[in-house]
Amino acid sequence: MTRSVAILLFDEVEVLDACGPFEVFSVANRVSRRDRPAADDPFQVSTFVTGERREAVARGGLVITASHTLDGLPAADIVVIPGGVTGAVETDLALLGWLRERRADTEVIAAVCTGAFVLAEAGLLAGRAATTHWEDLADLRRRFPDVEVQDGPRYLDGGDFATSAGVSAGIDLALHLVARFAGADLATATARQMDYPWTDGGRQSPH
Amino acid sequence: MTRSVAILLFDEVEVLDACGPFEVFSVANRVSRRDRPAADDPFQVSTFVTGERREAVARGGLVITASHTLDGLPAADIVVIPGGVTGAVETDLALLGWLRERRADTEVIAAVCTGAFVLAEAGLLAGRAATTHWEDLADLRRRFPDVEVQDGPRYLDGGDFATSAGVSAGIDLALHLVARFAGADLATATARQMDYPWTDGGRQSPH
Repeated sequence: MTRSVAILLFDEVEVLDACGPFEVFSVANRVSRRDRPAADDPFQVSTFVTGERREAVARGGLVITASHTLDGLPAADIVVIPGGVTGAVETDLALLGWLRERRADTEVIAAVCTGAFVLAEAGLLAGRAATTHWEDLADLRRRFPDVEVQDGPRYLDGGDFATSAGVSAGIDLALHLVARFAGADLATATARQMDYPWTDGGRQSPH
Repeated sequence: MTRSVAILLFDEVEVLDACGPFEVFSVANRVSRRDRPAADDPFQVSTFVTGERREAVARGGLVITASHTLDGLPAADIVVIPGGVTGAVETDLALLGWLRERRADTEVIAAVCTGAFVLAEAGLLAGRAATTHWEDLADLRRRFPDVEVQDGPRYLDGGDFATSAGVSAGIDLALHLVARFAGADLATATARQMDYPWTDGGRQSPH
């Protein structure tokens, strides 16, 4: 079974928040093809923007062109909302409405870093445990008192929603999702292929 | 003093090999602006391709548009050669010639992962210690017997040339270059901003 992964891009997205998970799911496919040649690819990875312009200028000026617009995006099993400068994304009513609509049919909506603010604005984290970049924990608590904000976990997987700590923690969360959906062996082999020190669960963020 | 960083992009570049160092140098600038507002940005980060088409389709299909072509690239103090599927890059005579010409005026040419094969093809690693992705160490040894290939170090900095282990090790090498050129404090603060567990030097790759 192949799960579709859709990674949001936007102007001022944090490069590694988006590219880390993209790398993880892509490498998981390559490792799977090598180690399980008869199996379907575990993931089909897309990127998407919410407007008509598919080019996103990430932080630092890296220009990434999304494969899809929100309107043309096929149903996604896994949605990744990266962080960065998320102000415009937090008030993007088309995106917030889409996230609310999609929640029932999506296996997990995963936010990296300040992407948690987008999920919180969509009302999806009320009463839920969540984390974000260490610099923004207090702000998340203040703005969304109904979210149980946790400081320390590298990531939190609440089943239908998941959140990670800052920037590079998105790699750990994505590896965890590979383990959850395609098995611990593939996740371990993916981390090894990326030469990335990783153990699933329980790891604290080093800040 | 601002140092210019030029990161090569090409079709089938490994996403994290290029985007990891891009993130590190960009975040170092942001952290520097926050902590040392009177100082110049330590880095000016560009991406470049060797042909006329500035769009590179990275592994997994991510489309990244370079800011420069090789012809239009200003002099670079730091050059980063990522890995990926490097066959076409290893036989790109314009690039190999440019690397040989630039070596005298560049502070460091840094290869991530299989980017080491490009430096080796340019004849730049003869008699030098180097490393690469664990999967490719034997091939690097076999093809370039005059390179002293090392298995284990997360990265090796030989002064004018540096190499790293696989994929995510490019983040560690870039953080080391931030320490080398802009100080250990800024490198540590950059790693912390990226929520990335990092200590300079001596760390082994986990494969």
